[in-house]
Amino acid sequence: MNNFADFNPFFMKKLLLLFLSGIVTISLYSQKNDSLVISGMYKNALTDTTSWHNLRILTSRYPGRLAGTDISLEAVKWAKTTLETMVLDSVWLQECMVRNWERGEKETGKAISAKAGTKELEVCALGGSIGTGKDGIKAKVIEISDYDDLKKLGRDAVKGKIVFINHPADPSFFSTFAAYGGVAAYRVRGANTASWYGAIAMIDRSATPAHDEFPHTGIIHYTDTVAMIPAFSISTNDADRLSKMVSQDPELQLFLKSSCVEKPVRKSYNVIGEIRGTGKPREIIAFGGHIDCWDNSQGAHDDGAGVVQTMDVLRLYKSLGIKPLHTLRVVLFMDEEMEQKGAKAYAEAVRNEKHIAAIEADRGGFTPQGFSIDATDEMIRKIQSWKPLLLPYGIYSLEKGGSGVDVRDLKYQNCPLMGLVPDAQRYFDYHHSANDTFDNVNIRELQLGTAAISAMVWLLDKE
Amino acid sequence: MNNFADFNPFFMKKLLLLFLSGIVTISLYSQKNDSLVISGMYKNALTDTTSWHNLRILTSRYPGRLAGTDISLEAVKWAKTTLETMVLDSVWLQECMVRNWERGEKETGKAISAKAGTKELEVCALGGSIGTGKDGIKAKVIEISDYDDLKKLGRDAVKGKIVFINHPADPSFFSTFAAYGGVAAYRVRGANTASWYGAIAMIDRSATPAHDEFPHTGIIHYTDTVAMIPAFSISTNDADRLSKMVSQDPELQLFLKSSCVEKPVRKSYNVIGEIRGTGKPREIIAFGGHIDCWDNSQGAHDDGAGVVQTMDVLRLYKSLGIKPLHTLRVVLFMDEEMEQKGAKAYAEAVRNEKHIAAIEADRGGFTPQGFSIDATDEMIRKIQSWKPLLLPYGIYSLEKGGSGVDVRDLKYQNCPLMGLVPDAQRYFDYHHSANDTFDNVNIRELQLGTAAISAMVWLLDKE
Repeated sequence: MNNFADFNPFFMKKLLLLFLSGIVTISLYSQKNDSLVISGMYKNALTDTTSWHNLRILTSRYPGRLAGTDISLEAVKWAKTTLETMVLDSVWLQECMVRNWERGEKETGKAISAKAGTKELEVCALGGSIGTGKDGIKAKVIEISDYDDLKKLGRDAVKGKIVFINHPADPSFFSTFAAYGGVAAYRVRGANTASWYGAIAMIDRSATPAHDEFPHTGIIHYTDTVAMIPAFSISTNDADRLSKMVSQDPELQLFLKSSCVEKPVRKSYNVIGEIRGTGKPREIIAFGGHIDCWDNSQGAHDDGAGVVQTMDVLRLYKSLGIKPLHTLRVVLFMDEEMEQKGAKAYAEAVRNEKHIAAIEADRGGFTPQGFSIDATDEMIRKIQSWKPLLLPYGIYSLEKGGSGVDVRDLKYQNCPLMGLVPDAQRYFDYHHSANDTFDNVNIRELQLGTAAISAMVWLLDKE
Repeated sequence: MNNFADFNPFFMKKLLLLFLSGIVTISLYSQKNDSLVISGMYKNALTDTTSWHNLRILTSRYPGRLAGTDISLEAVKWAKTTLETMVLDSVWLQECMVRNWERGEKETGKAISAKAGTKELEVCALGGSIGTGKDGIKAKVIEISDYDDLKKLGRDAVKGKIVFINHPADPSFFSTFAAYGGVAAYRVRGANTASWYGAIAMIDRSATPAHDEFPHTGIIHYTDTVAMIPAFSISTNDADRLSKMVSQDPELQLFLKSSCVEKPVRKSYNVIGEIRGTGKPREIIAFGGHIDCWDNSQGAHDDGAGVVQTMDVLRLYKSLGIKPLHTLRVVLFMDEEMEQKGAKAYAEAVRNEKHIAAIEADRGGFTPQGFSIDATDEMIRKIQSWKPLLLPYGIYSLEKGGSGVDVRDLKYQNCPLMGLVPDAQRYFDYHHSANDTFDNVNIRELQLGTAAISAMVWLLDKE
């Protein structure tokens, strides 16, 4: 606009007339006011340590809070109490029935070879896997890099073996989510596919471009038509070592043991809190993260960060004394990691309510770069028009894209669904592993998430 | 442009004519070619681990490589050999005379109070400080938060005391550099100012918004007209503790001991390597970081990262077989931390050469967000026109601003001087402290710096 105005006297004249008529004055005032409010939000978020302390408590007292576990219900209780302490207009629990899968004892993985020696391996059961039974499984290993390899081998070669899927995440992608997306399907479907070929167990290279000693877990899917076989993850470093051993000795055997059990489904809860809108209380802006996390981690980035950031948006609003026009609601979803039963329960429960936007924070507590937006082109353009207000804080990307699995079921609400997009270069160093700890979260990067969501909520609320 | 075209049939027609005439075809081809080259550069950088291995060697074998130290000369030797191994067109050393300040023994800091007890403090001498002498200094401490406090106290109150400057970096700034900028002056001038009021030593709260146990060092300046007094830094956590103790007991004494010495200036070197341009070999695109670092750190982010990234740009060019039009030159500057004698030597040495651009990488090995550009408005607009090519890699900020202290002396070359701008939210957690270690660098974030500089060099080279 400025450049155009510089070179167009006619436009300048028109602008002057508009100024005199007050139209532009109001708009510029409003823009300036937005800018001041957002600046205040950033200052508040960057100087308040509540989210940091909440994350410390959530990760240290309630690590491994997978849906269905006792500790996840303790985490629910803590979150409810914490929201109640914030003196919101309402705080409640929302029921959902969740799986109750238990890992059992620490898994054993061992490569056994006359030629290459014996080596303990860093392995863990994948989420939802059956156990191996008390005696474990010992069998020859077949290393493959993709499903074509299985096809080439055929059922006779695979039968009775342990299939080792060693497909590294491609580090050459700029987007680590793209790298992850390229391999996560092996984790999810690998056991099922290997079983179809007759394998008796599957072990998958961890779905991360990082080179580390942590097995990264994650959900797997069995289908009804194929026998369920135990599924494991192996750290990327040990995958490299195992691969080397297999190349030295094709007769190498693997010993794998896990004691996972699936117990009957269990009642669990989303935790919800809200500040009622002063103008349109029946219209809701929802935002949240998921309170569950994998049982092998503290769940600091995934998704303790999203939980404490979205809780903190309400703290920030109260702290700054901003009374929203619409109702602001934080939803801490249960069971994102397994079956998104919390997300489904929420989407069902609000069928008679009107949402004007829903924002999910579930990509780690790193420096925010933008929001991914699932909305009409018109609404996306509207949101993009706010970019000048957000760019000073590094929010440069407001693009059409997926929102997140916990809010996507709200699609029928016909409102923008958004996902906070932080810098994710480090995300898969931690994701679904014992490395996802509080110590690996930077306080400022965490605080900036609160600020970015608050600013977006402010702009949505004004509309 | 697309939006405009959508609604303007006249424009569409014109575009079609231009297409037919080949003008737009060439421009689009060129843009597409740039895009392919840059994509290839990112893929190369993200899959090559040379910079990572170089950083490991530089930080583990040559920690504390402050200009003037023996180890800094060892680092120079290593860098020269490493560049030679890359089979460049030329590799050479460029002399400069540098200070030879030595910290001496590990410093002692102790708070002594009858009421508040005795406490060891995490302190270090600030860079360039004189020592306390063998017996150390013991005196009453006066805590101030800024120079106004000194003025109010006056010389009589300050005389013979140790001045404790406890001015926290303001965390509410989005930019950590702005927060640092607000307090660094206390470190640089604090001893001198305190001395003018009669203080016998100065101890400064570390210049970082982080709360940690590390004293962060950095350069100080004495002036000729005021007596030099020993200057210390104290970790931010210990600054808080000391402040509390002082408030409990205004009679609290501090004991400080340091054995810094200033030895005669010494010969040192910039390390330079280049690939000769195939079209305009006498015109140079220079890029570099500084090879020295503070003696209390490994210098991983400051500035091992910049060193290995800019070395890696030449590796990447050779690896991809790209023959540059202009000469590409990496300059590893000596003595950034104290007096920038390497930068001055370089700027002087190239008076008869023509630079078409110079890029400095000295803000940590984090995810790159852009470049800060010191250039004419016209050149800045030109560089900004490349944004669509860089935005897919998160390079969203190409703004007018400072370049960096190692290239700013090239201003007379009348070419763009640029600084790589990474996400700096974590930078001051490490800066000038023992916390600036290799372990705190993420491989992908480091590699992306190589890619971003390479892409910028590619675009500059084409002009």
